[in-house]
Amino acid sequence: MNSRRRTPAATGKPAAAASPWRASRERLRDRALKRDAVIQAAAREFNRKGYHNTSLDDIAARLEVTKPTVYYYVTSKEQLLFECFVAGVEQIHAAFRDVRTLPVPARERLNAVLRHYGEAVASEFGWCMVRAEDQDLSPAMSRHIKALKSEIDHGIRRLIREGVQDGSIEPCDAKMTAFALAGALNWIAHWYREDRTLTGAQIAQAFVTIFEGGLRPRGGPAPVSSSVRTRRTRGASAR
Amino acid sequence: MNSRRRTPAATGKPAAAASPWRASRERLRDRALKRDAVIQAAAREFNRKGYHNTSLDDIAARLEVTKPTVYYYVTSKEQLLFECFVAGVEQIHAAFRDVRTLPVPARERLNAVLRHYGEAVASEFGWCMVRAEDQDLSPAMSRHIKALKSEIDHGIRRLIREGVQDGSIEPCDAKMTAFALAGALNWIAHWYREDRTLTGAQIAQAFVTIFEGGLRPRGGPAPVSSSVRTRRTRGASAR
Repeated sequence: MNSRRRTPAATGKPAAAASPWRASRERLRDRALKRDAVIQAAAREFNRKGYHNTSLDDIAARLEVTKPTVYYYVTSKEQLLFECFVAGVEQIHAAFRDVRTLPVPARERLNAVLRHYGEAVASEFGWCMVRAEDQDLSPAMSRHIKALKSEIDHGIRRLIREGVQDGSIEPCDAKMTAFALAGALNWIAHWYREDRTLTGAQIAQAFVTIFEGGLRPRGGPAPVSSSVRTRRTRGASAR
Repeated sequence: MNSRRRTPAATGKPAAAASPWRASRERLRDRALKRDAVIQAAAREFNRKGYHNTSLDDIAARLEVTKPTVYYYVTSKEQLLFECFVAGVEQIHAAFRDVRTLPVPARERLNAVLRHYGEAVASEFGWCMVRAEDQDLSPAMSRHIKALKSEIDHGIRRLIREGVQDGSIEPCDAKMTAFALAGALNWIAHWYREDRTLTGAQIAQAFVTIFEGGLRPRGGPAPVSSSVRTRRTRGASAR
């Protein structure tokens, strides 16, 4: 309906100013925004009640729409969980892309990724990021989620190895250290639901400071500043 | 049946040597051993298939007994999950008790606790320890589990604060550091099911080494040896 107001006839502007594609682009954008709203509502419900205890009816009720409206944006509850998962991990994938060419030691690039990771887990998508895999999903969906997680795991290991090589990280077992870092961060989704005395950004910073103590070389340079902040993709709304 | 062989009449020994309570003590021990077997079988099933996908029939089948036999040892599936949880966390509680009076710096006591923690999470009780809370338990059971977990959390924070005070731990935010340590360890239950290239003890040691790098004071003494090993309570079999 909104798009009708912008047709040449309605605005009185020359046809050239309003491309015949414009209305359709706006409809697409409108659809994307509504789809994001559905995903965000789902993330909140899954977070609050768990995946199995949440129905598409609950999500529709939260959005004050009907269930068929929800089906217009996603094909199933499973797909909805997957979209919530992706909204969370996309923030981490974006952080990896952003730091790739930064001309700073690998520890600083790793810190930036871990900070975004922490913020993502503390976001409303955190529960879905961390728990999606345990919800008896279809084998195909499960494989997809595992692959995306594995990419993050290997990205962290790679940055650790680069840091050991460039001297910014104390030599360590990259695989175990990556598991320890990811575990510490993933666990935020568990306790943060009940203890919200800090913001997600504050928690992420506190964790990076803790990790920093373990990662930086013994007798090495002072901790890096927390200034390496990359553009952050804000979950569903940025997709 | 076993106990009958040991009654005075059967052994021919004087009644004084075999207390009339002995048979009943042995029956109790026998019952405790069988109960532990039920708990261990349950832990394996929960670990493999998840709590909601496991029935008491599955557990009975694994033990080659009937379901009523299982009910002889536990009153419900929920209680069974709770017992599995307790079998895991008891190893950590025991470690706290063991290190309490050790005349070593707090960091070494903390290391010993964290090593037992890591081994417990990598044990067959790990999944139940970490996931019990998310299984829609009764409010009373949930509170009980939370209280036992909270005790561990506060025990770790206390050791961190003591370490900062005695100079064996770099000053840090005790609460956040305790969350980071516990998170890293809890997450073992997640990935260890699929990646069993190391033993639980090796993983626990690798994690303590990683933590050690972050905990010990900058420019402080060299890492402590891994010799502080306390008596370990072996899960269900020691209860």
